[in-house]
Amino acid sequence: MENCLFCKIINGEIPSYKIYENDYVYAFLDIANDYFGHTLVIPKKHFENVFDCEDDYLSEIIKAVKLISNHYKNLGFSGVNVINASGKDAEQSVFHLHFHILPRKENDGNKIWPTKEKKDFDLAKICDELKIKEN
Amino acid sequence: MENCLFCKIINGEIPSYKIYENDYVYAFLDIANDYFGHTLVIPKKHFENVFDCEDDYLSEIIKAVKLISNHYKNLGFSGVNVINASGKDAEQSVFHLHFHILPRKENDGNKIWPTKEKKDFDLAKICDELKIKEN
Repeated sequence: MENCLFCKIINGEIPSYKIYENDYVYAFLDIANDYFGHTLVIPKKHFENVFDCEDDYLSEIIKAVKLISNHYKNLGFSGVNVINASGKDAEQSVFHLHFHILPRKENDGNKIWPTKEKKDFDLAKICDELKIKEN
Repeated sequence: MENCLFCKIINGEIPSYKIYENDYVYAFLDIANDYFGHTLVIPKKHFENVFDCEDDYLSEIIKAVKLISNHYKNLGFSGVNVINASGKDAEQSVFHLHFHILPRKENDGNKIWPTKEKKDFDLAKICDELKIKEN
């Protein structure tokens, strides 16, 4: 897609630190450079986020996430966090679907889970509002 | 798997606020009750995390994440965050694979991205260390 930063990375118009590539996905280091090994996995076809991504591409992306995660484990990491933001209000910044992989180690000093205090939401009521009714 | 909290939820031994279910996955509200609509999507077959999950199940999980995300969008949310922790050192607490969905809205007061300052890691060097060589 024209003027898409990540499409330009896939096409090689913009250089990147490539980690992995196959027919469906491209994975490279995030230049945010905030976490050691912070990796982005993106589909080679342009989709905005999880809302519009074709199922086949979603499957290929998550399989590549697994492959790269196991590769990182073989290299000595003991865990990964996988994070996606879909939609501006979910803090998505580049509108080409991407899954972040943050490789983790014991006592790495990182803390990704955005802990919030327990609320008094009525879960039964929320469930009734949110559930998929045909189920 | 015996003594697995999430297997007991799938089997109905422990009650849950079910959002969605199909042959492969089960989705329910997280009783952490920290984010409105905080949902967990889990495989019906026991896997520990992304490292050991069979590809077919991974695909079904991510397709269910998309389905539920679009359902939440239809209900008025404008974004979602999708988060997975794989491994104790990645802050995984229940060792049955689960993907979190956090439904988001404009000005919801939440902030999930664990912003860290830019480091001076040598990305070219890290890329050489981490990349999958056959690529």
